[in-house]
This record gives sequence, C-alpha cells and structure tokens, in this order.
Amino acid sequence: MSKFWNEKTRNIEPYVAGEQPKPGTRVIKLNTNENPYAPSPLIKEQLERFDPEVLRLYPDPQSEIVRKEFATCFGVSKENVFCGNGSDEVLALSFEAFFEQGKDAAPILVPDISYSFYPVYAKLYDVPIKKIPLMADFSVDVDAFLQPAGGVAIANPNAPTSLALPLSEIERIVKAHPDHVVLVDEAYVAFGCESARALLPQYPNLLIVGTLSKSHSLAGIRLGYAVGAPELIDGLCRIRDSFNSYPVDAVAQRIGALAVSDVDWCQKNCSAIMTTRERSIATLRARGFEVLESKTNFLFAKPTTIAAETLYTKLREKGILVRYFNKPRINAFLRITIGTDEEMDKLFEAIDSIMGGMK
Amino acid sequence: MSKFWNEKTRNIEPYVAGEQPKPGTRVIKLNTNENPYAPSPLIKEQLERFDPEVLRLYPDPQSEIVRKEFATCFGVSKENVFCGNGSDEVLALSFEAFFEQGKDAAPILVPDISYSFYPVYAKLYDVPIKKIPLMADFSVDVDAFLQPAGGVAIANPNAPTSLALPLSEIERIVKAHPDHVVLVDEAYVAFGCESARALLPQYPNLLIVGTLSKSHSLAGIRLGYAVGAPELIDGLCRIRDSFNSYPVDAVAQRIGALAVSDVDWCQKNCSAIMTTRERSIATLRARGFEVLESKTNFLFAKPTTIAAETLYTKLREKGILVRYFNKPRINAFLRITIGTDEEMDKLFEAIDSIMGGMK
Repeated sequence: MSKFWNEKTRNIEPYVAGEQPKPGTRVIKLNTNENPYAPSPLIKEQLERFDPEVLRLYPDPQSEIVRKEFATCFGVSKENVFCGNGSDEVLALSFEAFFEQGKDAAPILVPDISYSFYPVYAKLYDVPIKKIPLMADFSVDVDAFLQPAGGVAIANPNAPTSLALPLSEIERIVKAHPDHVVLVDEAYVAFGCESARALLPQYPNLLIVGTLSKSHSLAGIRLGYAVGAPELIDGLCRIRDSFNSYPVDAVAQRIGALAVSDVDWCQKNCSAIMTTRERSIATLRARGFEVLESKTNFLFAKPTTIAAETLYTKLREKGILVRYFNKPRINAFLRITIGTDEEMDKLFEAIDSIMGGMK
Repeated sequence: MSKFWNEKTRNIEPYVAGEQPKPGTRVIKLNTNENPYAPSPLIKEQLERFDPEVLRLYPDPQSEIVRKEFATCFGVSKENVFCGNGSDEVLALSFEAFFEQGKDAAPILVPDISYSFYPVYAKLYDVPIKKIPLMADFSVDVDAFLQPAGGVAIANPNAPTSLALPLSEIERIVKAHPDHVVLVDEAYVAFGCESARALLPQYPNLLIVGTLSKSHSLAGIRLGYAVGAPELIDGLCRIRDSFNSYPVDAVAQRIGALAVSDVDWCQKNCSAIMTTRERSIATLRARGFEVLESKTNFLFAKPTTIAAETLYTKLREKGILVRYFNKPRINAFLRITIGTDEEMDKLFEAIDSIMGGMK
C-alpha cells in the first residue's frame, strides 16, 4: 500500500493470470489456453519482408486492414467491427462504455463462475454486478438471465467450465434485454460452438467479443475484436479515443489481417485440437476423471481419487502446468489446455505415474 | 448518440489525434510529431529472424526484457520501470491510479495549454482538474504550480508550445507536492531538454512518462514507459492487471528492447533532428514567423502576414500536413514537426509560394 495510490488503486483486486514461465523454461504449458500449434505460415513471410521504416509512423488508429478481414470473414461490414489490444482490452472498454456506473445503477448479470476478469472490470468501473449461480451441472441458468438488469456479460463457451449454450438459449437472453447491452464473450467459439453472430441483424443490443489468441495461435500479438451494431462500435471508439488512440500496433495489424484471411489454416488448426480434445476426454474418463463436455480448447476435469490441488502441484513438479482455481464449487477441478497429442500423452503418463504412486 | 451508451460514453469528449492519411497517400507528414528517420537497423534483422511460433504464447506480462534495457539506459532498477501500450496508455493508467476521483477530490493542476489528452483522461476518470494558464510568453507559470493540489500533470518539454523548463523549476514543483504524484510527461525529452530522472532518488512522488514514438522512430509499435519509485510502479501494475494483463505484445517487446539498447543510433537520430530544427527556426524567422525556442522535434510557429488557419489549409492543398489548433491563444500558430532536411525545404518552398502569392 502506498500513500500515492488513490482509493480505486487501494481497493481494486487485480485479475491474476495463469503463470507465465520465464522464457527458456522447459515446461509443458497447459495452463493459459494457448494454441499448441504455430500461427499461419503467411506470418513468417510477412515478418521477413516487413519494412521497419513503417514503424516510424503511428499505426492506423482504426485498424482498417484488420477490420476489413474480419468483416469478410464474418459476413458483416467493417462498421460492425472494433479492434483492440487483445480481447481483454475490448472487454474492459465494453464494460466502461455500456454498463452504467455507480451504486444506483441497475446491476448487470454475470455467471458466478466464469471468466474471473468480469468482476474485476465491474469493480474497476464501479459497475454493480449480480452473480447468477451456475446450475448444479455447471450449465448457465438461462432463465435467471431473463430478469430485468442493466446488461449482461456472459462467456459462450463459458470458462473455466468449457460448456456452451446453444444459439437459441443465447437468443433468449439477448431478446430479454432490448434496452441494454448483452455482451457475449466468444474467446473459445472456434472449437465447436455456434457463434451468436447469426443474431446480429435482429439485435442491436448484442455485442460479441472475440480474440485471435486461441483459434489463430496469436496470443503473442494481442488482437481482440468486437462485432455489433455500428452504434455500439461507435460507443467503443468514443471510450478508446478517450484512453489510447492507437491501441493496435502496425505489426499486429499486418499479422492479424493475414491470420484472419487464412481461414483454411485456422479451421485445420482448430479441428486438430478438437480431435485431440475428444481423445483426451476419453482418456481421462477412463482414469476415473469427471470431465465436462468441452466446446473449447481446454478441459474442465475432476480427478476422483486424488485432490485436484494435489494433482496440480505434483504435475507442476514434473514440469506440466495446468490451472487450478482455489474457489468454492470449482476447487475439485483442474482446467487443462489441449496441447499437441504428444504433450497430452506426457500429461497422461504423468497422471498415471502420480496416481499409481498414490495407491 | 445511442441508448446503449452509458452516461460516461454520452458525455465524454474524445481526444482528436492529428490526421493519419490512408496508407499509400503521398504527403509530407509534419502533423503528428513522428520521427522522419527509420528506426535502428537492428530492428530489421530482428524481424527477419523472428520465430512466429513464439506468437502462439502470451507475451511476458511484465515486459522484462524492455524494462531491463530501460533500467540500464536510465541508471535505475527494473523495479523502477513500467511499460505500456504507448505512452498514452501509460498516462491514462497513471491518471487512473494516482489522482483521486469524484467531485470532492482536490483538483490536480495542469497547464491550460498542453497535451490535450490530459483533460480527456481527467474527464474519463472523473478527476477534477484546475487549469493553470501559461504566461504571456507561453512558458509554464511555475509559481502557480506550487499551490496545494491533488497532484500535477505537466509535459516537459510542453506541447504544442515546444518550450522546456529547466530541471530546477521541475524540482520546485515536485518538492511542493510531497504527498501527491507529480507526473512529468517527457515524450519529447530527447531533443535537448534535461530529464527529471535525476530527481528520482530524492522524490518518491515523481513519475516520469516517456515513449519510443519520437526519439526512437517507433510510433508504430506503441511502447511507452513510466519511471518512478517502486510503489508507483506497483500502483500502475495494480490498475493494468485490472484492465489488461498483457499490454505489450511479443514483437513490440523484442523491437523495443533492441531500440532502447541502441543508444548511439538514437543519439545520432535526435542530433540530426535538432540540427534541422535550428536551421528551420532560422529559416522561418527570416520569413517573419514568430517561432518559440523549441526543445522538441517540432516547432510552434506564428506566421505574421497570413492567418495560421489559411496557411494550414493552403499547405494541405499542396500535400503538406501540419497541425493547427482552433483554440483560444494558440489559433494564430501552427505546430510543425521537424522532418528531413529535404521535407523542410519543400515546406519552405511551399510557404514562399503561398506567401508570395498573397502579395
């Protein structure tokens, strides 16, 4: 604590991201839902021929080249697309732009177990939230999301549960709040979940946020997007332009645009991960784990003969990082990113070795 | 206006950056204080050999490799350094972290004519500000900055005036506010101004913000920094980690670290600009312009036989962009970035042609 911190800085509870080992550390990293495969080969060529002279100039503040590629890919206009410095920034700006602030504002609805950055944004921007408990099976309680509120923030698929709602259920939520923004965070949508983009023409209150970090193997370039009605995109631009006029750098814009254009590569990459995922679910279930039906690039899995925290610690000792949340209701689970087949095999071997040693 | 915008979004007045022509447009761009020279040649090599596989992982959230280079360069520890997505982001996070919010908070002091993003940040974060008028000669009224306040934000050198305060005057301001943060924005410090870094050991309330955009020819990669006591850096980290855990992408970290390490190149680059600047001041004065003593990579210049706005418009018609602010006290001036010698000669030719045509 410092006397120079203002009240907000003193009281905030920052988000804690998954551990990032120092460069050069040899670990199997299944803890932050990164993609195990390299990004599109187009990117290597782009970096090799990139003219650094360009870097002396500010980047395009509107990220036009990226927005155009997203627009083509999503079948919308570029006026429907916003780009930011990772989807975390886009989510933060969305909370800041659309949800009313102060203790008298109507609370927004969020699942009690979801991306743990949402309550942090809410606190940062003084947005009241009402947490809606997940059902006993960890699915989202859609009916509870139909109650009057100042807005909704929901991840579909949800994290860390890995479960997805069908489009019809998302539509019920969006339809129930015609005067408030319903933010659907689709960070993991490319791994077998239906996107809510199909609803955009009917619902001007729908804002979908996504990222290149998972499906496009580009967590390192920090490129996130929002898709929605132009009036929502304009609202995001107003807040962005009051904060940082040039959020996406020139290299990230070039790389991002190319990655979005390489649709085939992205699909193959995601398919490979889904295949490994199904095999991994079967393998863990065969070892007695309870594993939720994942529509993401990670598993939410509960070991039944060993405490999750113990398994997490023992895997860590063997150089395998997974994510453990020491929180009510989910502290018996591990969140395990889908790696390559080879990495998953090493995980299973390690689990067998640890659980064998427990007998 | 949209019904989905919250009160903040409806009422904010976003910052308006200088015009960024579409890529491929052939103009002489002297309007956003970019560096006319390419960045360090080390950067081209780095981009050519960059392994895109790295990009599948999140970047180091702490930007260690960049902070270490800054620490070496500035003679401080890396615990004294914070990195962000351009100095605009670092400034915004500083306003958000240190200045008290709400109508009952003590106002912070800012010059009435300075970087026009400061009042935008203040409004975004609900920080009361008190604008201290510049003196008649556009210098900062240091005595007025000694009054009790909730903090200070000042640019040294100041923009768009180009004038610098000596270190002793900055020290008087920092010393007068031992319980509040004095933020010194040194975006232009490399062009002949003394840095306040020399004051850091004595003043834990001093926070210096800077950028690679001007002195290092890297506006395109968005890398800004803050230097100050570890408790201030920790405060910035708390707000960053409540907003966006990974603000500096992996490519920007590599490029930025290399650029900071190439001290000789940076000094040569800045020296060349200062030489062109002195010649440009003399050339404009010979044409009857009033030109302030610049310690930056731009000039603040008042034409005396033509209205500034007219000259701005006519230069624009000739493909030369400079910056004009239609604001009280400064609407008779143009802010002109120092370009290459060749670009400046074209500017002078255009001015001669325009002013000759007016006779």
